[in-house]
Amino acid sequence: MTNLAPQSRNEIGIETAISVLKQRFGERLQTGDSIREQHGHTTTRIANQPPDAVVFVKSADEVSEVMRVASEHGAPVIPFGTGTSLEGHVNAPNGGISVDVSQMDQILVVHAEDLDVVVQPGVTRMALNEYLRDTGLFFPIDPGANASLGGMAATGASGTNAVRYGTMKDNVLSLEAVLPSGEVICTGRRARKSSAGYDLTRLLVGSEGTLGLITELTLKLQGIPEAISSAHCTFPDIETACNAVIATIQMGIPVARIELLDAESVAAMNAYSKLSLPISPLLLLEFHGSTPGVSEQAKTFGEIAEDIGGSGFSWTDSPEERTRLWQARHDIYWALVAANPGREGVASDVCVPISKLSEAVTRAQSRAKELGLTAPIVGHVGDGNFHASVFIDTSSPAEMASCDAYLNWLSELAVELDGTISGEHGIGQGKINSLVKEMGGSVDVMKAIKRAIDPDNIMNPGKVVLFD
Amino acid sequence: MTNLAPQSRNEIGIETAISVLKQRFGERLQTGDSIREQHGHTTTRIANQPPDAVVFVKSADEVSEVMRVASEHGAPVIPFGTGTSLEGHVNAPNGGISVDVSQMDQILVVHAEDLDVVVQPGVTRMALNEYLRDTGLFFPIDPGANASLGGMAATGASGTNAVRYGTMKDNVLSLEAVLPSGEVICTGRRARKSSAGYDLTRLLVGSEGTLGLITELTLKLQGIPEAISSAHCTFPDIETACNAVIATIQMGIPVARIELLDAESVAAMNAYSKLSLPISPLLLLEFHGSTPGVSEQAKTFGEIAEDIGGSGFSWTDSPEERTRLWQARHDIYWALVAANPGREGVASDVCVPISKLSEAVTRAQSRAKELGLTAPIVGHVGDGNFHASVFIDTSSPAEMASCDAYLNWLSELAVELDGTISGEHGIGQGKINSLVKEMGGSVDVMKAIKRAIDPDNIMNPGKVVLFD
Repeated sequence: MTNLAPQSRNEIGIETAISVLKQRFGERLQTGDSIREQHGHTTTRIANQPPDAVVFVKSADEVSEVMRVASEHGAPVIPFGTGTSLEGHVNAPNGGISVDVSQMDQILVVHAEDLDVVVQPGVTRMALNEYLRDTGLFFPIDPGANASLGGMAATGASGTNAVRYGTMKDNVLSLEAVLPSGEVICTGRRARKSSAGYDLTRLLVGSEGTLGLITELTLKLQGIPEAISSAHCTFPDIETACNAVIATIQMGIPVARIELLDAESVAAMNAYSKLSLPISPLLLLEFHGSTPGVSEQAKTFGEIAEDIGGSGFSWTDSPEERTRLWQARHDIYWALVAANPGREGVASDVCVPISKLSEAVTRAQSRAKELGLTAPIVGHVGDGNFHASVFIDTSSPAEMASCDAYLNWLSELAVELDGTISGEHGIGQGKINSLVKEMGGSVDVMKAIKRAIDPDNIMNPGKVVLFD
Repeated sequence: MTNLAPQSRNEIGIETAISVLKQRFGERLQTGDSIREQHGHTTTRIANQPPDAVVFVKSADEVSEVMRVASEHGAPVIPFGTGTSLEGHVNAPNGGISVDVSQMDQILVVHAEDLDVVVQPGVTRMALNEYLRDTGLFFPIDPGANASLGGMAATGASGTNAVRYGTMKDNVLSLEAVLPSGEVICTGRRARKSSAGYDLTRLLVGSEGTLGLITELTLKLQGIPEAISSAHCTFPDIETACNAVIATIQMGIPVARIELLDAESVAAMNAYSKLSLPISPLLLLEFHGSTPGVSEQAKTFGEIAEDIGGSGFSWTDSPEERTRLWQARHDIYWALVAANPGREGVASDVCVPISKLSEAVTRAQSRAKELGLTAPIVGHVGDGNFHASVFIDTSSPAEMASCDAYLNWLSELAVELDGTISGEHGIGQGKINSLVKEMGGSVDVMKAIKRAIDPDNIMNPGKVVLFD
C-alpha cells in the first residue's frame, strides 16, 4: 500500500546474525511465520512487513549483545514494545531482527518524594498505574492503547491529557539506551531540570528506535488529584466549539482533558454507548484539582461555553457519571467501527495552532465529503491536535486511493496552517514523504544526526528519515 | 583561571574572514579593544578571551552571510546576546568573530489566541514582557538577568518560576537557526505539540551556539494570572525547610515560585533590604491563579509548613508587600556583595532530586566551612536547583584554588546524589571537564552530533564538548 519499496536487503548478514543469536538465545529467538507477522505492522493501512526473527530480551546487556552481533553482520534491528503504533514503526522493510522488550517489564524503583519512577521499557502504562495505585501517584500520559512505556517514549506519544500534563517529551527525565555499537548510554539523571550539554533525552524521545534502543526510563509522576470533575457541552457548529476551547485556554483554566467530537462521532457514540446527546459538535472535559478547585473550573468553563453559544452544559463530580461519558469517549473507535460495518478505520493525526483549529476541522470535513469518504473527527483540541478516522473498504483500490489522497491533503493542510503533520503518532513509514514538506532543510540535519549515530543504518531502517 | 588553553588558532583564516566581512558590513564590524573585551566573558571567575572582531547583524540573511564567510576561511563564530551567561559561553578561546544579535530586537508577531509570540533573538525578556503588558499575556521564564531570548534558548535558561512554568526547553515552540554552512533551517511550526521527526528544537535549546545560531524564536506565552499571592515561612534548619518543599510539591500545590535562602543569605537580605526576618532558613513563595485559588494555595502551604516545624508563616495578596519581599530576593546578589566587601561572588549551579536537597545543601555548607569559604546558598528548590555563591578575593591564589576545589567538589556531589552539574547555567567553558562525570558515554554521542553538524568546528568552539 503506502510502504516504501524494500531497500537493499543484506541476506547473508541477516542469516548469519540470526544463527549467531540463535546459539545464544535458544528458544528466546523465534522465526515462525506467525510470530514474525505479529511483530510487523498490524494496525492500519500500511502492509505487514515481518522481520526475519524475533528475539525476546531480558536486560540491557542482552540488547547490547544483540546489537553488537547485528552491527557486525549489518542486520537491521527493529525495537518492539506492544506493536500498537500506527505508522509502520515496527515493520521490517529490509528484514532483520525484531527485539521484543515485553519481558523487560520490571518497575525498578518508585521515588515517591521526588515524584519519579524508574522502569524497564516493556512496562505498559496501565501496569505502571496499577502498580502505583497505593502510592497516591500516577503516570498521566494516555495515548488510548495500553502501549509500552519504551514504545511511548520512542514515538513521542501523548493523548487526551497532554493539554495539562504534556507529552512524553515533557515526562521523561532520562533514558538508558543501547546504541547501534552496543554501547549502553544514560542520557541524564533524576534532577527535574538540567542544562548539562545537548538534550539527548529529548533527542531519543520521538526518534522511533532509529538512533538507539531504550532499555530503561526515568519518568515524572503526578499526585493523584484530590478531586476530578467532568463536564460536557454541545455546540451548534465546529467554529463555536473551537472558540470555546480558545477562550478556556486563554482564561488559564487548567483543564486536564478537553476533547472535541464532531456530529458524526457523537451519533456513533450515542448508538454504541446508549447515550442521547444532541447530534451536534460536543466538547467533553475533565478537571483535576482540589474539591473547590474542580468545581470552580467546571463552572467557569460552563459560563464561557454558554456565553459563546454552547448549550446543554452539564458537569458532575460523581465518579460513575464521569466514567460513563469518558468510557464512551474511550470506546469511540469501536463506536465508529460499529457505525461503518464492513469498513476499516484508518487513523490520521495532525496538529495546528488552536486559532486555526476550526478552519482545519471544517475544511477536513468538506474535503472528505468531496472525496466521498466517511471521516469522522475527534480531537485533543486543547493542543489543536485532531484525528480524522477514514472508514474505507480496504479491498477497493478506488477507496484506498481516495483515502491516500485525503491523508496527503490533510498533511498539506496542517503545514499550510502552520501546524504539524504528526501531533502524536510519529513519522514511521507512513509519513516519511510528508516530513520534508513540514521540516524542509531540517530533514538534512536529522539525516546527519542519524548517520553520525548509526552510520551503517541498522537501527529501524526505513523510518523517520531515509539514507540518501 | 579555569579557561582551557587556546586550541589551534587559525590566524590567516580569521584575518581573511574579517577583511571580507569588513568590506560587507563597514562600521557594523568593529575591532576595537574595548568592544572586543565587552564581547568576551565578563561575569565570573573565568578570564576574558575577546574575539578578534564583533559584527552587529540585522537579519538571518546577514547571519548566513557571516557564517558562509567564516566557514570558507575556518574562522570561529561566537553568538552574542547580552553577555550575561556565567560559564564563559561568549569567550573566544581560538579567536574569531562575535556575532552580536542585539539589533535583531523585533517582536515579529503576537498570536494571542494561540498564546505564542515570534521574536528575533536580541529581544530581552523584559522588553518582551513590557510589550505584552496590554495583551494580558506574559513570558514566564525569569533567569534574573535581563538576558536576550536567543541567549536564554541557547543556554537552556530557567530561574525562579521554572517549578510552575518549566524551562526554556518547555517554552520554545520552534526555532529558526543558521547552520555553520550558512543554511537557514526552521525546526518546527506553531503547533503546541509535534512528533514529526527528531526534536531539533530541543536539541538547539541548550546547545550554547555550538550547532547553529538562533535567528528567530517562537515562544509559548501564559495568561497573566487573575491573582498573585506570596508567602514566607522560617524554618529551624535546612532539613525542615526541604521537607516542607517536598510536602508542598507532593500535595500538588501549583506553586509559581518556591525559593530557599539559608541563614547567611537571610542575614545579608535583612541588612541590605531593611527587613527583620529571623536569621534562619527561609522559604519564600508565590502563587498564581484565581483569587480564591491563590488564597487556598497560600493557606494550604501555611498548614503544611507549620505542621512540619516552620514558624512565622505569613501570606499576603497585597502587591506592595509582595513586591517588597520579592525585590529583596531579586537583590540578593547585591546584598551578598554588600555583606562581603572587597570580595567577588562566583556563581555555582547544581540541581538534585528534591529528596536529596537537604543533604546536598547541608553538605555544601559544611564543605565551604572546611575550605574556609563564605558560600551562602539560595535555591529554586521546587526543582532541587540551588546556587552557592562563593565570595572570594580573586587576587588571592589560595582563595581562588579553594574556590575551584569547592566548585569541582560541588559538581561531584551533584552527580553522587543523582543530580546534574548544571541546573540552568549550562556547560560553556567552566564545566566542560565535569560533563563527562555526569554523562559518561553520552558525551561521545554529543561529540558525534557536533561533528555531524559542524565538521569544521567553527560554531562557538571550546564550549560544551571539545573536538578530540
